[in-house]
Amino acid sequence: MAKVIAPVAAASGQAAGATWIYRFEEGSAAMRDLLGGKGAGLAEMTRAGLPVPDGFTITTEACLAFYRNGRALPAGLDQSVRTHMAILERNTHKSFGGREDPLLVSVRSGARVSMPGMMDTILNLGLNDQTVEGLAVLTGNPRFAWDAYRRFVQMFGKVVLSLDGELFEHVISERKRTEGVKNDPEVSAEGWRAVVAAFKSIIERESGTPFPQDVYAQLFRAVEAVFDSWNSKRAIDYRRFNKFPDDWGTAVNVVSMVFGNMGEDSGTGVAFTRNPSTGERALFGEYLTNAQGEDVVAGIRTPMAIAELEQRQPGVYRQFVEIADKLEHRYRDMQDMEFTVERGKLYMLQTRNGKRAAEAAVKIALDMVDEGLISRAEAVRRVDAESLNQLFHARIDPNERFEAVATGINASPGAATGAIALDADTAVAWAKKGRAVVLVREETAPDDVHGMIAAQGVLTAKGGATSHAAVVARGMGKPCVAGCEVLTIDSRARTVTVKGTTLHEGDAITIDGSTGSVILRGLTLIPPPSELPVWLARFLGWADETRRLDVWANADTPEDARRARELGARGIGLCRTEHMFFGEDRLPIVREMILSDTPEARAQALLRLLPFQREDFAGLLEAMAGYTVTIRLLDPPLHEFLPPYEDLLVEMTELRVAHGERDARYLEKRRVLDRVRQLHEQNPMLGFRVCRLGIVYPEIYAMQARAVVEAAAALRGRGVDARPTIMIPGVGNLREMEFTAEHARATIAQTFKDLGVEPFEIQVGTMIELPRACLVADQLAGVAEFFSFGTNDLTQTTLGYSRDDAENSFIPHYLDLKILKEDPFQVLDREGVGALMRIGVERGRNAQAKLKIGICGEHGGDPSSIAFCDALAIDYVSCSPYRVPIARLAAAQAALEHTGKREGADQD
Amino acid sequence: MAKVIAPVAAASGQAAGATWIYRFEEGSAAMRDLLGGKGAGLAEMTRAGLPVPDGFTITTEACLAFYRNGRALPAGLDQSVRTHMAILERNTHKSFGGREDPLLVSVRSGARVSMPGMMDTILNLGLNDQTVEGLAVLTGNPRFAWDAYRRFVQMFGKVVLSLDGELFEHVISERKRTEGVKNDPEVSAEGWRAVVAAFKSIIERESGTPFPQDVYAQLFRAVEAVFDSWNSKRAIDYRRFNKFPDDWGTAVNVVSMVFGNMGEDSGTGVAFTRNPSTGERALFGEYLTNAQGEDVVAGIRTPMAIAELEQRQPGVYRQFVEIADKLEHRYRDMQDMEFTVERGKLYMLQTRNGKRAAEAAVKIALDMVDEGLISRAEAVRRVDAESLNQLFHARIDPNERFEAVATGINASPGAATGAIALDADTAVAWAKKGRAVVLVREETAPDDVHGMIAAQGVLTAKGGATSHAAVVARGMGKPCVAGCEVLTIDSRARTVTVKGTTLHEGDAITIDGSTGSVILRGLTLIPPPSELPVWLARFLGWADETRRLDVWANADTPEDARRARELGARGIGLCRTEHMFFGEDRLPIVREMILSDTPEARAQALLRLLPFQREDFAGLLEAMAGYTVTIRLLDPPLHEFLPPYEDLLVEMTELRVAHGERDARYLEKRRVLDRVRQLHEQNPMLGFRVCRLGIVYPEIYAMQARAVVEAAAALRGRGVDARPTIMIPGVGNLREMEFTAEHARATIAQTFKDLGVEPFEIQVGTMIELPRACLVADQLAGVAEFFSFGTNDLTQTTLGYSRDDAENSFIPHYLDLKILKEDPFQVLDREGVGALMRIGVERGRNAQAKLKIGICGEHGGDPSSIAFCDALAIDYVSCSPYRVPIARLAAAQAALEHTGKREGADQD
Repeated sequence: MAKVIAPVAAASGQAAGATWIYRFEEGSAAMRDLLGGKGAGLAEMTRAGLPVPDGFTITTEACLAFYRNGRALPAGLDQSVRTHMAILERNTHKSFGGREDPLLVSVRSGARVSMPGMMDTILNLGLNDQTVEGLAVLTGNPRFAWDAYRRFVQMFGKVVLSLDGELFEHVISERKRTEGVKNDPEVSAEGWRAVVAAFKSIIERESGTPFPQDVYAQLFRAVEAVFDSWNSKRAIDYRRFNKFPDDWGTAVNVVSMVFGNMGEDSGTGVAFTRNPSTGERALFGEYLTNAQGEDVVAGIRTPMAIAELEQRQPGVYRQFVEIADKLEHRYRDMQDMEFTVERGKLYMLQTRNGKRAAEAAVKIALDMVDEGLISRAEAVRRVDAESLNQLFHARIDPNERFEAVATGINASPGAATGAIALDADTAVAWAKKGRAVVLVREETAPDDVHGMIAAQGVLTAKGGATSHAAVVARGMGKPCVAGCEVLTIDSRARTVTVKGTTLHEGDAITIDGSTGSVILRGLTLIPPPSELPVWLARFLGWADETRRLDVWANADTPEDARRARELGARGIGLCRTEHMFFGEDRLPIVREMILSDTPEARAQALLRLLPFQREDFAGLLEAMAGYTVTIRLLDPPLHEFLPPYEDLLVEMTELRVAHGERDARYLEKRRVLDRVRQLHEQNPMLGFRVCRLGIVYPEIYAMQARAVVEAAAALRGRGVDARPTIMIPGVGNLREMEFTAEHARATIAQTFKDLGVEPFEIQVGTMIELPRACLVADQLAGVAEFFSFGTNDLTQTTLGYSRDDAENSFIPHYLDLKILKEDPFQVLDREGVGALMRIGVERGRNAQAKLKIGICGEHGGDPSSIAFCDALAIDYVSCSPYRVPIARLAAAQAALEHTGKREGADQD
Repeated sequence: MAKVIAPVAAASGQAAGATWIYRFEEGSAAMRDLLGGKGAGLAEMTRAGLPVPDGFTITTEACLAFYRNGRALPAGLDQSVRTHMAILERNTHKSFGGREDPLLVSVRSGARVSMPGMMDTILNLGLNDQTVEGLAVLTGNPRFAWDAYRRFVQMFGKVVLSLDGELFEHVISERKRTEGVKNDPEVSAEGWRAVVAAFKSIIERESGTPFPQDVYAQLFRAVEAVFDSWNSKRAIDYRRFNKFPDDWGTAVNVVSMVFGNMGEDSGTGVAFTRNPSTGERALFGEYLTNAQGEDVVAGIRTPMAIAELEQRQPGVYRQFVEIADKLEHRYRDMQDMEFTVERGKLYMLQTRNGKRAAEAAVKIALDMVDEGLISRAEAVRRVDAESLNQLFHARIDPNERFEAVATGINASPGAATGAIALDADTAVAWAKKGRAVVLVREETAPDDVHGMIAAQGVLTAKGGATSHAAVVARGMGKPCVAGCEVLTIDSRARTVTVKGTTLHEGDAITIDGSTGSVILRGLTLIPPPSELPVWLARFLGWADETRRLDVWANADTPEDARRARELGARGIGLCRTEHMFFGEDRLPIVREMILSDTPEARAQALLRLLPFQREDFAGLLEAMAGYTVTIRLLDPPLHEFLPPYEDLLVEMTELRVAHGERDARYLEKRRVLDRVRQLHEQNPMLGFRVCRLGIVYPEIYAMQARAVVEAAAALRGRGVDARPTIMIPGVGNLREMEFTAEHARATIAQTFKDLGVEPFEIQVGTMIELPRACLVADQLAGVAEFFSFGTNDLTQTTLGYSRDDAENSFIPHYLDLKILKEDPFQVLDREGVGALMRIGVERGRNAQAKLKIGICGEHGGDPSSIAFCDALAIDYVSCSPYRVPIARLAAAQAALEHTGKREGADQD
């Protein structure tokens, strides 16, 4: 067994000010936190005896000290750098700033994890008006020397002094025109010399001070610039997107220069030990002759495939293949390497675990287990659970070339293309005719659900990642871009305008819910796989062997339930019965029920809803036969089922102005408005909803409970193992629990009696979604047979954030200002919501030791939240069907984390 | 020292089924929980050797067993009653159901506390067709005997059989007409005999079974009827209003009858040992010759003052005075006694601590301390803190005779009368002309505050006891009746219609915020005292010596602050700065600030608000010189300051219909509407408000902090001891606290510097009003210098109840169904909100042992919530000015409760 390779916590505890610098031979892969990924890789390769240019690493601690110090280098660093440069001079037999054989270095950033292109690097540092001459003499190649110098001055100007790169490019273009050449390598030594002179003038003019000739001044300015780049806007944005903390800092690597641009026997390359897209086990990468790394990045010349190097320089290639193999075995993971060949000699400049697409990640993990390189447990740990998301959605064909006109919130992944439909009915009508549509709305309401079902995807101008559109779309697995605020929808003119471009209803549009992109034309899409691929099934099988948490799904339709089951769900944790009330054959009856003047009229309407509900439940129970189906009784405020108040208000006003106050239609509209106004609430989220409905109108819940029993009994009558449970939403105190549970149990018993069938078990449990429910969980557990944490609502009440409002108003500011590290509706707030969940679990289990506890909020599909749930020792997580594979893997990873099943303990 | 007289907990733990009955001589005053108040009083008087008719008490446990038993008498009770009746027969030498000397009894209810008139009593039980003849012979007075019999049958019909009393009254009226007499005592024996026969027919006809001749059947039916009356609607309503639990049950007292209607030497009376209205130390009561107790209650004959008895029956009077004195010393409290004189012999039928008006309660307590009867601590305990509320409000002159046309929610106590004003501007205009107005609105919004200030009182058709109108009115000490839903306001016709009566704007109306009554004309009012009366100041001085909690007030104006100070507040716990933004000179600037397109424009508007805020704060700080003034920075969502969305929508629609879509006014209105819509929120309670405002727009909080410093510095400059602190609302996490506190402290420091004055301490603290804040209180306490629990919002989020909505929708149902025992916005929810407060206090003090903690929610003025705060060991409660005396007393009572300072320990 290789030793454990993992961040060593102690390393980051390094006393500030003690040791700011490590030479490569002093470090190792285990010191990644302190030395950054690049520094640790260089150290590890040095340690492995591989050819690495000499150098040293300034630690991440020094970076943090730099910020603590008000963006000034910490005490002692100056001296330490000079000491290490002296060692470097001694080892390389060169002299930093020396005329004869000048030591040149690169200064490279390197955080704990790779943040490609986000931070800065400076090459050829150490060149000045003197040393350039020395380099010219030494290499016998003045063109090379002056080219190197101009590159350094140019980089210094851009990176250290933040000058506009265009200023420099312009000089080079002018020079090429003067010399009548097309490409940089054709520019003469004299040309580069003239360019350097022009660059220096630019720097002095633009920055107010001359380009520094003192090499230590160059070096310290460069180190500061790299430190500064840790907090560049793009670096911060990148960290936010990837949920990396801001307090890691970056290390700085000072590496003696080697040159890939010293002729045709020189070059530079990047390579992966395996294919990062497909996972195929073969060296994969590119090589560019007579070039420096930046030339590869710049993309001016086309590099060759790495395999071609075998023809060109077979010795170098063989050596590189050996090194790649050695590194993969040493790291026991696919490596992403950078290297340079200087006059036929190979230098390794970087190695790190390679990034890979989800499919490649799974396949590489499978292969490495088969190769005996890693254990199954390690394979399970290797794949980023969230990345599996990519596998289950349509994507825009990579061959499409397009520009996104706007970017909204990537609310539900996948791409969709179709004709713009501006309301749900239009979407349904067109879809019925076989037309693909994208529903485009200001924001969606429950009224729009049938349109969302009919549409390929949903685009809204308002609302965040947990807006109605987002939540429902994710539940359905439909692509959704939400809150695209530059969108102006004119519902009278039937147009959509974005940044000056106006499309009409029916025009084609494409959205990418994975990125938030909106494209104002139709694009070709690549569909997702229609079933779980064999390789993924095998991999998730290992996850299943490992995990402790059950994985269930939230599903409201038989179709969703079947999909969830295929993706590995072993139960339904949340069926939202209200979604069934929005069907066009049901909504009128629901409205009649709500607007009833008498209990009798209400009962009458409910009686007509009963067959619909029975049918709904039967479909779901059959699709999930053999597994628990948790049916949540009616949850939303009743006014969600009525016409919108605002619409009525406008219509009523129109009638009044046009026909006067005695107009019969006006008076009727006013009467309906009055009923709607009665139900209108200031804060519907905290209003007349959840179990409060079932307590004030017990007949509603009774109808639903009866439908559950009738559906299950009928299925069992024909041998289908239907297993419903009933879940009461929004319980806050013991009496609510008792009242609703007693009523539900009485209805269940009565229905069995009425049907004349042998009773079977139908558990009655509750959603825990209010702070008070957590605090009195011991009392509730005396009555409820299971708990399911509704973390969406629990987050809203614990934090006092309305998700409908907060994500479009203060949450973006909060993320910018670092008041919040993450959107609490996406990642469970452990300190607040999590603390209440812990109280709820403890008190609930104290009262009833074997209480079944799950989570059915959207956090149930978020890997880090799943890890928290595993630590809480709850029984299951329930998430939208397409997130089931993610949850299976995340649950396994959490189990490995929490049971300490580390490397070797579970080798199979 | 007399021994402690207090409920004995053990008594109520009496094993069910063990002892259902106690004879009077077996009981005592200490057994009140088991025997009820009346039973315990009869027992105590028996024990004291006073003349009490013989009898026994069936316990409250028997009543509870009756309900557990499905409303059937528990096993063993039947036999026990018969045994005790046998003892009664032996002692009285009479026979129950016997022809010769029949034993008659009264069957009287009696709960733990007096619930006057709420439950049932049956007199003369034991009479039937036989025993009535015996009684006639024995007394030699057939008229008396038949009168007694008809009274019994009548009561039995009404009370036991729930028949309509009119049926019986009608027979008596007919009989009196037949005999040509006016009053009952003039009806002949024959007449009463005929009436009895008619009554019996009625009973048989109406109930389907004949009147029972079996005396034990009579007795058991009567006992059941008394038990049943515990759960009569009126009894339940009474308990709900008085916050008595439903699980006490009532005892039943079976007392051998004595007759006050046996002639001119007989009679019946009720008396108090002191005057229950004024507290004056003199026997106070009434006596009715030749009558039974029910005649006094019926009010047919006018009784004489008790003092007149001295002339009529000096011996009896002397004996009664002695007994009264003895009882007052025995109970060490003012007694409310019932007695009967039967042929010159005095019988005591009841004694209990007398109910008294607030003024009398205080004065009696003062007197009894001066008399050496009770300690100061006991005096403090004696007065119901809530009752002090009566002393600070105008009342309707008791001489006014009126009928309330409707009853709303008694949202803010006191009476008001004036001309109806239908909007705030009218109220202000009329008030300026010296006209008294009552503001009548559908519901109030912050926009209406200037009208509320101008009005004598406020009446709303919608909203509960914590609606905007209610909260603001209570804060101002203005009477308010809220949620009077039968009110229809037509703002176009300028009328108010209630149950068919239509008043016009300007017509007189009267409201009583203490009862919720609405009267459709002007009534004469009695004004409240203009300052704290000397006797009350003396009494509250004792409370102040006793209490541990500080009492502060919530006040937004210098006038409120001065009033609060006069009533004993020793600090301002909450100044709501947003109230200052609604002034007519400020609101336009505030709107400009909110609608600003650029930070510069916003800063410009804020600069113009600064002098207003400075002036506001200066007034408040000066009024509270020497005491802390806690200034809460801006709290509500910004849209509260803008015109209502609905109004704009209607206006815009009107313009569109009338002038088309190109009309400039329409387009302008639409533009404003768009801005309002941007700020419009689904759930403003959980939206962009509290410290979120001050983080996204730090310049707002900076302006406020600067105004605080400038105001305080100017006052100190002229020797006024201004002591401001700054409170950040709605903090939920550490970074919010850090951000806002850092900004506030920086502004404070900068302002001191700008002013060139020596800095003084201005603490920065936070409101704890979110569940998350309680959970991370340890973190917050590292930054905040004080905590103040905002229990209004904390209740909303912990329970998930929007107070604006819940009190008009499901809370009334919840109280009816006993899902809730009390409205959690009125009485602190200890299990939920209280549990979070406890967590907050513990974690906060763990981090900062001396952290100052208060409460400034409306619960800060509720006695039972104050008791909870005392148990939590927080430092102060802050309430509206007029509740300060209540809080001072409640805090003292809580301290006595919690420190175990019981009788004798603190005798002075």
